[in-house]
Amino acid sequence: MKTITTRRSIRKYQCKEVDNELINKLLTESERTQTMGNLQLYSVVITHSDEQKRKLAPAHFHQPMVTQAPVVLTFCADFRRTSTWAECRKAQPGYDNFLSFINAATDTLLYCQTFCNLAEEAGLGLCFLGTTLYNPKSIIDTLQLPRLVMPVATITLGWPDETPELSDRLPLSAIIHDETYQDYTPERVDQFYHEKESLPENIQFCQVNEKETLAQVFTDIRYTKKDNEAMSKNLLDTLKQQGFL
Amino acid sequence: MKTITTRRSIRKYQCKEVDNELINKLLTESERTQTMGNLQLYSVVITHSDEQKRKLAPAHFHQPMVTQAPVVLTFCADFRRTSTWAECRKAQPGYDNFLSFINAATDTLLYCQTFCNLAEEAGLGLCFLGTTLYNPKSIIDTLQLPRLVMPVATITLGWPDETPELSDRLPLSAIIHDETYQDYTPERVDQFYHEKESLPENIQFCQVNEKETLAQVFTDIRYTKKDNEAMSKNLLDTLKQQGFL
Repeated sequence: MKTITTRRSIRKYQCKEVDNELINKLLTESERTQTMGNLQLYSVVITHSDEQKRKLAPAHFHQPMVTQAPVVLTFCADFRRTSTWAECRKAQPGYDNFLSFINAATDTLLYCQTFCNLAEEAGLGLCFLGTTLYNPKSIIDTLQLPRLVMPVATITLGWPDETPELSDRLPLSAIIHDETYQDYTPERVDQFYHEKESLPENIQFCQVNEKETLAQVFTDIRYTKKDNEAMSKNLLDTLKQQGFL
Repeated sequence: MKTITTRRSIRKYQCKEVDNELINKLLTESERTQTMGNLQLYSVVITHSDEQKRKLAPAHFHQPMVTQAPVVLTFCADFRRTSTWAECRKAQPGYDNFLSFINAATDTLLYCQTFCNLAEEAGLGLCFLGTTLYNPKSIIDTLQLPRLVMPVATITLGWPDETPELSDRLPLSAIIHDETYQDYTPERVDQFYHEKESLPENIQFCQVNEKETLAQVFTDIRYTKKDNEAMSKNLLDTLKQQGFL
């Protein structure tokens, strides 16, 4: 997995199919990932058709990767299969609740990330779309997801046609805590964020967005309180609709 | 990442430390994992001390790995660091909501799984504890996690001292869906679960638990509706306490 140290999200793909055999091999290998009670609480909907990609696009704010990538994979937290199995086997499933959603989402995200690690090692490029949980109802309609199935991650996949710069990361010391959580003082914030804030690309990012600080680009433009609150309500409504609340 | 095809959860460890340098190297490499807006919405609390392991044990139902593993890692969804950074930079953070929890949990689980894959590739053994979200309040107290920090995954880590059998997995056809979700009929359930249900270890698992079907072991004993509902309430309460609801 040497590829991990040079990985970057890939948004431009060659006009070249990704073999189904390769995708299936990687999805099968990913099944070795740990899973709750070995229940494998996930499903993957594989989108090849242009029509379906076009229908998925609005939910992902029309990011061009969705229609341009050869394949789009939607990873879904799935207690439907396990519940149907139980009902076929004289058992009463009790998975229409919030904990079960979180358990299935956990299984799904771990499975998805092993897939990402394996796909990148195989030379594929991918972009993880965080938008999946912003407009889940539209994705549910397009993919015809029934009760107890909830989309939690989307990957656009293809052979890379770009090599973007590596993005920066915080120093490890900003992330790890020894024995107990050590809170972030203004001094520690300066120490951990100084390098990030000094990078030319981030200074430019502030200028383009007409903001004084990098943090303001996130709070005022990219992830605002207003949007987060509206989407939180929408997400909770959708969890209710899918039977998880 | 050839190790993926033979991976198993490891619950017994050699009496041999795991070098801090190795852990830090793996945690640093894992930082290359995709992250929302490059905000890295996670923290890791590293537990070496016997005293802290003993305090964590009850939350994990006293599974022996927690006190016996040389290291325990608790991966936390963390909007505290980002919010403190914003406050230090004339920005108003708006991350005290449910969507922000899900976004941070997603970041955290992806990061955690890359770490698992790298650690296993380095020859380490680990067990992912699904119990983290069953009794989060006790973990929060022990690790002194402040508002906007929520534990979502725990890993016990060490050098393997066992080679358990590989556990079974469903055929890939049980998991993937072409273009739209294909629901699970009784016929498809039979097709997908037949092999699992025929395995000697799973037949024995029914007998030991005095259940007629394998599914009943899960619905009646391991993951019951009653427990799930009680823990759902507890989890939602804890999200409220930590400022995410």
